Amino acid sequence: MPKYNALYAQSGGVTAVINATACGVIQTAQQHADKIGRVFAARDGIVGVLTEDLIDVGLESPADIAALRHTPGSIFGSCRHKLGTLEKNRLQYERLIEVFSTHDIRYFFYNGGGDSQDTAAKIAQISETMGYPIACIGVPKTVDNDLPFTDNSPGFGSVAKYIAVSIREAGLDVASMAQSSTKVFVIEVMGRHAGWIAAAGGLAAETEGDAPHIILFPEIPLDQEAFLARVQLCIKKFGHCAIVASEGIRNTDGTFVAESGLVDAFGHKQLGGVAPIISKLIKNNLGYKYHWALADYLQRSARHIASKTDAEQAYAVGKAAVEFALAGKNAVMPIIVRESNHPYRWSIGEAPIAKIANVEVKLPRHYITEDGFGITPACREYLQPLIEGEDYPPYKNGLPLYVKLKKIAVAKKLEKTFEI
Amino acid sequence: MPKYNALYAQSGGVTAVINATACGVIQTAQQHADKIGRVFAARDGIVGVLTEDLIDVGLESPADIAALRHTPGSIFGSCRHKLGTLEKNRLQYERLIEVFSTHDIRYFFYNGGGDSQDTAAKIAQISETMGYPIACIGVPKTVDNDLPFTDNSPGFGSVAKYIAVSIREAGLDVASMAQSSTKVFVIEVMGRHAGWIAAAGGLAAETEGDAPHIILFPEIPLDQEAFLARVQLCIKKFGHCAIVASEGIRNTDGTFVAESGLVDAFGHKQLGGVAPIISKLIKNNLGYKYHWALADYLQRSARHIASKTDAEQAYAVGKAAVEFALAGKNAVMPIIVRESNHPYRWSIGEAPIAKIANVEVKLPRHYITEDGFGITPACREYLQPLIEGEDYPPYKNGLPLYVKLKKIAVAKKLEKTFEI
Repeated sequence: MPKYNALYAQSGGVTAVINATACGVIQTAQQHADKIGRVFAARDGIVGVLTEDLIDVGLESPADIAALRHTPGSIFGSCRHKLGTLEKNRLQYERLIEVFSTHDIRYFFYNGGGDSQDTAAKIAQISETMGYPIACIGVPKTVDNDLPFTDNSPGFGSVAKYIAVSIREAGLDVASMAQSSTKVFVIEVMGRHAGWIAAAGGLAAETEGDAPHIILFPEIPLDQEAFLARVQLCIKKFGHCAIVASEGIRNTDGTFVAESGLVDAFGHKQLGGVAPIISKLIKNNLGYKYHWALADYLQRSARHIASKTDAEQAYAVGKAAVEFALAGKNAVMPIIVRESNHPYRWSIGEAPIAKIANVEVKLPRHYITEDGFGITPACREYLQPLIEGEDYPPYKNGLPLYVKLKKIAVAKKLEKTFEI
Repeated sequence: MPKYNALYAQSGGVTAVINATACGVIQTAQQHADKIGRVFAARDGIVGVLTEDLIDVGLESPADIAALRHTPGSIFGSCRHKLGTLEKNRLQYERLIEVFSTHDIRYFFYNGGGDSQDTAAKIAQISETMGYPIACIGVPKTVDNDLPFTDNSPGFGSVAKYIAVSIREAGLDVASMAQSSTKVFVIEVMGRHAGWIAAAGGLAAETEGDAPHIILFPEIPLDQEAFLARVQLCIKKFGHCAIVASEGIRNTDGTFVAESGLVDAFGHKQLGGVAPIISKLIKNNLGYKYHWALADYLQRSARHIASKTDAEQAYAVGKAAVEFALAGKNAVMPIIVRESNHPYRWSIGEAPIAKIANVEVKLPRHYITEDGFGITPACREYLQPLIEGEDYPPYKNGLPLYVKLKKIAVAKKLEKTFEI
């Protein structure tokens, strides 16, 4: 059996564990040296494939590759580049084939979310429509947890854990100060279209009075009156109110709260997002002193508090992707299948990438309490195993020891450069 | 020797380790049952003393008291209440004495920052000026690290570690995306008057190109032109730019950047703080896409990533405070004394609380690089030991297991209530 090379690339917004997937792909590919020749990585996702910017992963030390398992961010660089259709962008696809064939690449692993699986699906078609034999395997990743088929998306469990831990801790802070100072705390979390991350904050509330007291989901239009009444009730009952607000919450008229300028009589757009607007809404109507936080990249890069479940699943999908390719599969993506809740058990399944691309799975209505401000027991049962377990990175000088690779470039062989 | 009761109270902004100090005070006091009778805590700091809202700490289980060591926030509640002068507020002081004497309290431990030590200093005078024999020991705490005499303040090391870890992680995130998307990341950190927390972010940059690339200190007026040139240079050299900005940075005219509305031609005040203004300044002048984060309470409540050094010192000052009281001292505060840097060694010393109150120690100029955008080796040598070591809390269901106390109230004995 002739040996061909493998190419791995990362795409879209990064996560705390996408490099654990890289580790799974690379280690597994290297274990199959009988079938796979060299292992390459593209710099900056599909962009690096088009520009022939490839990294020779085989020149990295095994210890450094192993350390990818606990290193956040995207070690090879990511991108938000989408391939056009074959009809309109034939040159792009010809270029891809040129790079693949020049470097003997017949295994391609594209690690990303919904948009990225659209790219993977298009590349997977190459073997059929353009006659170049490539096994293209999508590898799931997204903090948004909005991919279909898979029970959950690698990357989500860790951001979920980060948000749940953070609101538990900040909730204790605001409770401490409430008697004479700040009574309201708002944390804004990611999730423009789906409330999965916001829902995860709800895991911190295990007994009555625990933070968060209110969750604002993008799936539930913000009823200001009901919301303010709930804040007032919380402060009456508990002395303070801790709120998790998704960046994607909308007003009842469908506009984004972040863009609605609720607080500015002149209609000028505000710089901040949802958290300051929600805070000011409370201050203006109820008069309470507030604090707010915007975790932004902190939440999705927080490898120091990654979920062990998430890190293990991220590695497993990378490993499975290589095994799929070696089994002769194409145009599929490994997914997480939930086998049972008590005890939590999962396995790896597969799904066709063409059906994954550009589908966004929202939080089901029965995961949100009837009043729209919290999560149901069913939601908790779904989310809880995903944040289970700690998986601490090693430390040096009081800081997590994240690996840097040598990233030695594969010599370019093509004469033409390619303009993105 | 007659036995008297001890009272402990927490004051000011809370930290990830102030309850470790509570644990040190309570466990040490309980170990001296031959000299100390009951151990009480005031609810919400000095406010609870005035209102006779005392908690009987002796009714908590030893396991729960031990768990305070790893529980963030202020378990007994904090406050921002300042006592007036004896001359103008004699009634307040008489009330304090009334509460102390009614409950046989002759040891008082006030755990807080500069403002709180002002309160402690005034109470310490009672024995002299009003004839009530009280041993009042101040116990240091502040994330701001701005107390005099002590080498560092308990609470600071943990927020320092949190910020250094966070900028390292978020820096990897922005580096990942920089080729085709976000190139600038700004995290806003606490420290309105002193740049200690901002400086701590600098610990993450160990080799050239590491985040953070720029630090903005409250001690250095923001020279917009020099700053923008530095951002441009960073992006040219490294492809991206990660910035730590103190909430307290000022323009060259002395006004706070957070209030300067740099980005709004109409002069309307912005809701966010410094981070969005700095981000927009870069966007408007250099055109780069940005992300920003505001950690707010997350940074000072992040017990999950507390510094082991900090947790140990926080416990030690609590323990020392009780030992000072039992040694007959009054009006002093235990401090951290740095014995050596290599290896890092520290011990407990003491300082007069009257000289601590309302003094703010700023970052010395020689801790900041000449260009004003980074920290010097001397600063790194000072800061590094303070973030050393991890001290993870126990976990349950994927979340840190923080203790809740029963907080059984001591029966009120005074007929009169007291209006704050």
